Amino acid sequence: MDKIGKYEFMAEPFHCDFSGHMFLGHLGNQMLNAADFHSTDRGFGMKYLMNIKRSWVLSRLAIEMMEMPSQYERYIVETWVESAMKFFTQRNFCVLDNEGQVYGYGRSVWAMIDTETRQPTDIYSIDNGAIDKWIVADKPCPIEKGGRVKMTDKAQLVRTIELYYNDIDINGHVNSVKYIEHVLDLWNIAWYRTHRIKRFEIAYVAEAHQGDKLCFYMEQTAENEYCVRLVKTDRQSQAEVEVCRSKVSFEAISLT
Amino acid sequence: MDKIGKYEFMAEPFHCDFSGHMFLGHLGNQMLNAADFHSTDRGFGMKYLMNIKRSWVLSRLAIEMMEMPSQYERYIVETWVESAMKFFTQRNFCVLDNEGQVYGYGRSVWAMIDTETRQPTDIYSIDNGAIDKWIVADKPCPIEKGGRVKMTDKAQLVRTIELYYNDIDINGHVNSVKYIEHVLDLWNIAWYRTHRIKRFEIAYVAEAHQGDKLCFYMEQTAENEYCVRLVKTDRQSQAEVEVCRSKVSFEAISLT
Repeated sequence: MDKIGKYEFMAEPFHCDFSGHMFLGHLGNQMLNAADFHSTDRGFGMKYLMNIKRSWVLSRLAIEMMEMPSQYERYIVETWVESAMKFFTQRNFCVLDNEGQVYGYGRSVWAMIDTETRQPTDIYSIDNGAIDKWIVADKPCPIEKGGRVKMTDKAQLVRTIELYYNDIDINGHVNSVKYIEHVLDLWNIAWYRTHRIKRFEIAYVAEAHQGDKLCFYMEQTAENEYCVRLVKTDRQSQAEVEVCRSKVSFEAISLT
Repeated sequence: MDKIGKYEFMAEPFHCDFSGHMFLGHLGNQMLNAADFHSTDRGFGMKYLMNIKRSWVLSRLAIEMMEMPSQYERYIVETWVESAMKFFTQRNFCVLDNEGQVYGYGRSVWAMIDTETRQPTDIYSIDNGAIDKWIVADKPCPIEKGGRVKMTDKAQLVRTIELYYNDIDINGHVNSVKYIEHVLDLWNIAWYRTHRIKRFEIAYVAEAHQGDKLCFYMEQTAENEYCVRLVKTDRQSQAEVEVCRSKVSFEAISLT
């Protein structure tokens, strides 16, 4: 079996925004699906891990797009494991069309946890380090890795939302893709008419649940670059707990 | 070409709720995709209509499920046109597995509008009444048609939300599926642990846009039956305008 997985998807009408391009959240969702199909086909997918009380947990995701697929366009998500260490794997993505034209790239970092203790576990303990068989170190993924999103005390509270039934996935936590959508909802259509998302980056820190309130603190860190910290209130201590941190870089566009 | 379209989908992990079953909103989305594929393949799809300044507009949708597909299950959406009149078509759906076991059914009503005047237009004016070629009057769809959702003044305001970038589709209006999700978010996970959605019905009345606030008025009309009226404030007159109306029937379940 090829070390690189390739999965074809279509930009569905209801997954496209006002401009007729796919929402970034839905693209992120298909990257996560591709990751799941790739690992399942190669013996280290979620279903297998469930049996041995392990699970992959998405720790970071960065997506950088030159262009977004338009309504009804078919696109391919390639995915492969670039590297693995005891507690983390680096999984990359390339999004391209059927002619091989690249739309953009993604980089992700995954941890493996023990589903009972919720603690990180050794990825190499699975099937005698079988992950090493699938590493593709030399396929280019020419975008920067997600770094630490630096924010100062200047970040302003810009929105508070409640989390509902449709935000929650099978693990009982807020679905990773929903955070992307909630962050990108901080900008309105007038903004998106003149700006496209060039790079989106998110680091997941803690889990949020239905009934939690999420506060969004935003700080502009450069021209067209914004950092957003999502915070919930701990139910017991009432302290603010950081849930995730995101950085969004836009590029000015003129819609013609 | 067969008058009945059949499209296979998979219950994707991030499209499943805490219980591991597909969210109803995502199933609704796949029904709308199936409708689009079916009409496109037969020469009366959205893309063709766009050229002649016409568009299908979903007027009503009713979904009744015996069971929801679980995570990773493949399911088929069959769709066909049951009847057509000058201004409306009735399109039905059957959701089943690969062995022919039925999960549930859907019924929908569609109008055709002139995209410039936004007024209803004659469906039979398209290609000399070609729609008649595709009518399947005798395939059973054993669920009730959506009726008028009757509500009284007793309905209580239960939630107000704002509409953001991710709510809006390519037409600049709130995506039909988002209304379904926002309505079903009125119940929490504790409720869904002991109740499944037996029947969901929605009638679309007016269009809402980004920046609008939606108010949800709810009324219990029978045991496990709730009606919800979604209302926005008109930007000019400040009057309350009804956007859609929904009826949700639950069935008590015991999760074993």
